[in-house]
Amino acid sequence: MTLTPEQQAEITEARATTRPTLRATAEGMERHLYLAQPVLDHGLVRVIDYMGDDAAITQAARVSYGRGTKAVTNDEGLIRYLMRHWHSTPFEMCEVKFHVKLPVFVARQWIRHRTANVNEYSARYSILDREFYIPAPENLAAQSTVNNQGRGALLEGEEAARVLDILREDAMRSYDHYEAMLSQDGQRGLARELARMNLPANVYTQWYWKVDLHNLFHFLRLRADAHAQYEIRAYAEAMCRIVRDWVPLAYAAFEDYRLGGATLSAKAIGVLRRRLKGEMVTQESSGMSKGEWREFEGVWT
Amino acid sequence: MTLTPEQQAEITEARATTRPTLRATAEGMERHLYLAQPVLDHGLVRVIDYMGDDAAITQAARVSYGRGTKAVTNDEGLIRYLMRHWHSTPFEMCEVKFHVKLPVFVARQWIRHRTANVNEYSARYSILDREFYIPAPENLAAQSTVNNQGRGALLEGEEAARVLDILREDAMRSYDHYEAMLSQDGQRGLARELARMNLPANVYTQWYWKVDLHNLFHFLRLRADAHAQYEIRAYAEAMCRIVRDWVPLAYAAFEDYRLGGATLSAKAIGVLRRRLKGEMVTQESSGMSKGEWREFEGVWT
Amino acid sequence: MTLTPEQQAEITEARATTRPTLRATAEGMERHLYLAQPVLDHGLVRVIDYMGDDAAITQAARVSYGRGTKAVTNDEGLIRYLMRHWHSTPFEMCEVKFHVKLPVFVARQWIRHRTANVNEYSARYSILDREFYIPAPENLAAQSTVNNQGRGALLEGEEAARVLDILREDAMRSYDHYEAMLSQDGQRGLARELARMNLPANVYTQWYWKVDLHNLFHFLRLRADAHAQYEIRAYAEAMCRIVRDWVPLAYAAFEDYRLGGATLSAKAIGVLRRRLKGEMVTQESSGMSKGEWREFEGVWT
Amino acid sequence: MTLTPEQQAEITEARATTRPTLRATAEGMERHLYLAQPVLDHGLVRVIDYMGDDAAITQAARVSYGRGTKAVTNDEGLIRYLMRHWHSTPFEMCEVKFHVKLPVFVARQWIRHRTANVNEYSARYSILDREFYIPAPENLAAQSTVNNQGRGALLEGEEAARVLDILREDAMRSYDHYEAMLSQDGQRGLARELARMNLPANVYTQWYWKVDLHNLFHFLRLRADAHAQYEIRAYAEAMCRIVRDWVPLAYAAFEDYRLGGATLSAKAIGVLRRRLKGEMVTQESSGMSKGEWREFEGVWT
Repeated sequence: MTLTPEQQAEITEARATTRPTLRATAEGMERHLYLAQPVLDHGLVRVIDYMGDDAAITQAARVSYGRGTKAVTNDEGLIRYLMRHWHSTPFEMCEVKFHVKLPVFVARQWIRHRTANVNEYSARYSILDREFYIPAPENLAAQSTVNNQGRGALLEGEEAARVLDILREDAMRSYDHYEAMLSQDGQRGLARELARMNLPANVYTQWYWKVDLHNLFHFLRLRADAHAQYEIRAYAEAMCRIVRDWVPLAYAAFEDYRLGGATLSAKAIGVLRRRLKGEMVTQESSGMSKGEWREFEGVWT
Repeated sequence: MTLTPEQQAEITEARATTRPTLRATAEGMERHLYLAQPVLDHGLVRVIDYMGDDAAITQAARVSYGRGTKAVTNDEGLIRYLMRHWHSTPFEMCEVKFHVKLPVFVARQWIRHRTANVNEYSARYSILDREFYIPAPENLAAQSTVNNQGRGALLEGEEAARVLDILREDAMRSYDHYEAMLSQDGQRGLARELARMNLPANVYTQWYWKVDLHNLFHFLRLRADAHAQYEIRAYAEAMCRIVRDWVPLAYAAFEDYRLGGATLSAKAIGVLRRRLKGEMVTQESSGMSKGEWREFEGVWT
Repeated sequence: MTLTPEQQAEITEARATTRPTLRATAEGMERHLYLAQPVLDHGLVRVIDYMGDDAAITQAARVSYGRGTKAVTNDEGLIRYLMRHWHSTPFEMCEVKFHVKLPVFVARQWIRHRTANVNEYSARYSILDREFYIPAPENLAAQSTVNNQGRGALLEGEEAARVLDILREDAMRSYDHYEAMLSQDGQRGLARELARMNLPANVYTQWYWKVDLHNLFHFLRLRADAHAQYEIRAYAEAMCRIVRDWVPLAYAAFEDYRLGGATLSAKAIGVLRRRLKGEMVTQESSGMSKGEWREFEGVWT
Repeated sequence: MTLTPEQQAEITEARATTRPTLRATAEGMERHLYLAQPVLDHGLVRVIDYMGDDAAITQAARVSYGRGTKAVTNDEGLIRYLMRHWHSTPFEMCEVKFHVKLPVFVARQWIRHRTANVNEYSARYSILDREFYIPAPENLAAQSTVNNQGRGALLEGEEAARVLDILREDAMRSYDHYEAMLSQDGQRGLARELARMNLPANVYTQWYWKVDLHNLFHFLRLRADAHAQYEIRAYAEAMCRIVRDWVPLAYAAFEDYRLGGATLSAKAIGVLRRRLKGEMVTQESSGMSKGEWREFEGVWT
């Protein structure tokens, strides 16, 4: 992550001014506000604003007039109950706004989550910076041989070097050409909305992304998961750390019931019932397909 | 509006505690926080929380690192530009959460706006209060004779008295019966989720309603409009006054381009072009239907 | 359910006209089209239109040019895979439109599912019929003594009779008064949008409701569940029978992974791991609360 | 547009099979089904499925049991009324599913419309084809000198040739390198989800896109507009031609009230009122900014 001195100064200034408010505040979140968390080689996540805290969830669930005088243990129990029984609306009552800098191919996965507000830096209007994601050697993986949608072993030696050279050189050349096409020096200069088409998908873009806590949890469950592509997972994990400081009770319930939980099919429940009675069950006698069985067995080991 | 002493005390307490925050604050909104604005006979609207201010709109439009040092006049020009050209995403970057107490038939209109978060008081879980909307005499209107979906002249004299008696008596009786069915005194007591079905649509319910500024403007344009039913308009107008204090620049643009604006069809533009050249145009030569012509003419008088 | 002869004739006519189409058709759904499935005492569900079938799900998942020549067993495996791994977008590629007649208190629960299109009969514009939901004796339950949001034992004898009398009489009286207020016989007649406020929540309304298959499954999982209120469950179950005939492969996957499945928390997985190793685990040593433990144990018995 | 023989055969086969249905059909849409409309150099739009027709809009607005016996002129009047008064829900009752092949930079604009269902070809799972958008000479425009977000004069001569050379060569080279990195010939082969990051934004992707008619009209109003980027406008215009054949009455209302219409601010209405009374009004006396005045004047000339 490379912040310009101007950007760094703007962040410092934003953190220097405290204002009084009657709203709920979350101390854990105030510590994060505006600060850039580095992600990948040039990316970042930072909190721009937030609404609500753990108590706001139970306050909404009770449709109450005040913040309530109930003990924290009551809040915790109610939050766990709400999460366990899929009561989503109280969690929707918290909101957070992030500033994210991310490669375009990550942005394209991210935007598939539609229940959020997004304002992206416009490459029709502005000129993108010369910043590209180049994987670190420990993330340069081969195509998985068992999963069409996944990574396998690391690339090594010459192959790894060749790939990194290609990615770096193609990025630099495409950006040189982008600038050359845009230039108005001795020529008209191609429209920005056209010139950008030459830039590869590892170029960095940025956006403001605003989402409620329920939909953020849904995003994090899918994107902080081991099956998510590493690059988006890096963002999801940075956001998990922020959310944990913001709404610790809700985050703990999310960890227990979603991140660390598992969904069983009716067949899987049947197999477990038989096993708990001492019966041996194999894939053949389970009624599950091989892939399903492998995933099921993976939960218990 | 009738707040219990406990509710009043909770509001007073909530307004007594100021906390420091690094977030954007809107002074006009801090003045409203938690306070109940009365609407109709027993209803209310109050702000529970908010995110952002006028500057947050332009900050998101620019995807900037800081709050920016641009002058307010620049913010105003950009906000007007964004509103005029239907750029909705920057306005989505502000969010507000209301606590609303409202009759069920108003709630049923309101909820048709789907892009919002709602947590309603549960009559499966809790017992509703004995509070019903009874129109004030000046709102007791007859069916319109020209518009199937509207009101006409006021009811007067005996007819008005009869209607008010019916509404009051039926409300009280239905609530007496609601209580009688729920009672566990000498009987099992009917389930709450069933007993509520006896209550008429003017019983008050309440909810937390959270929405972004773009979708709130859309709601207000439709519901603060002269064609909206009076009872929901009363809520929309109370919210307009709050929003004006929260984001004065955005609200002024909304008033100019939406609330006070008009949408012209291609035919209407054609008529105006002819008129501006001095031509007389009548409904017959306009290509519009009679209803359309009446609405069109209404804009210019 | 009481269809007027005119309504019955319209349905009969709609089913009499077959048209040729190049679109995908689902024979199981053609059999349902337009026919009214009775629900509760006066309610109904009927299919007005549909888009897609099981093959449309896999076709979209593959973004293919044709309908594909893959065997049904391949479709089944892929559909199960997509459901298991929460790939929601292929299921969104099927759509269905229902006409539903339902009591207002059921409509109010239903509408909380926001990702759908709804067009409701307008009581501002039209006059509602004299039709009210009165529970059958076997559904007249007392408030649960263990669950604030549920039903317990049946009401019996005099109490049951008293409740049914109240519900019937209040419904009839409120409708008489509704008509009396609307009447323009010797008086102006109250506006429809006001008169309707006197009608209780068991009056029937109706709407067109259109939803994609993914969001319909989400609705059915919550509303065909044993914890849902009986009255909305009756609708969900009627719709389950229709969906099973429409997309049998997707419905079977839904039954296995969602309706008949269970979500385990990280704690629950830990308990099961210990049990599968032969360890005895009690609530005290599980780390779960009593309520959570009761629900967890309920899965295995 | 280049369809492979296999793709062409699949389309031909899909159009060869007519099935009987009880659903509403739209003859104008049956003619379009499955056929690929070419857009840009390698893109396409084709209709995969549809639900409803003009009559389905009024049927939903009336929440009726049958298709209705009303004359077409009544449907037309009602549809115009609904469009004029922003009644969106009846238009939501029609649905359409497209297969679209489009450059990634167009897909990134398109996806900002969130109220739709999308299933995109996965470059994590599959390998993209060697197809890139290269603008035709008549679309190779310079950056606008008056609008930061627009195009100005055409590039000509050497500059145009240079730009086209860059775009073609960078596309081919990046694809060669994409293939080289993926290759498992004598090396492991980079994971697809990583290799794709080398491809520029003019590479073609494809998706299934499903949307209701109200939201489609919203998309078309913004994207068939003169201010939209040419490349996405080409898709919007192809879809306009399809929609006109599908729901001719609704499309005509859309053309009159939206595409060909204009929204006036309160200030603009004031200016027009003064002008219609014969008064001269200039920008200075209008209260509008220069930019706003220019746009306003543009409506009348």
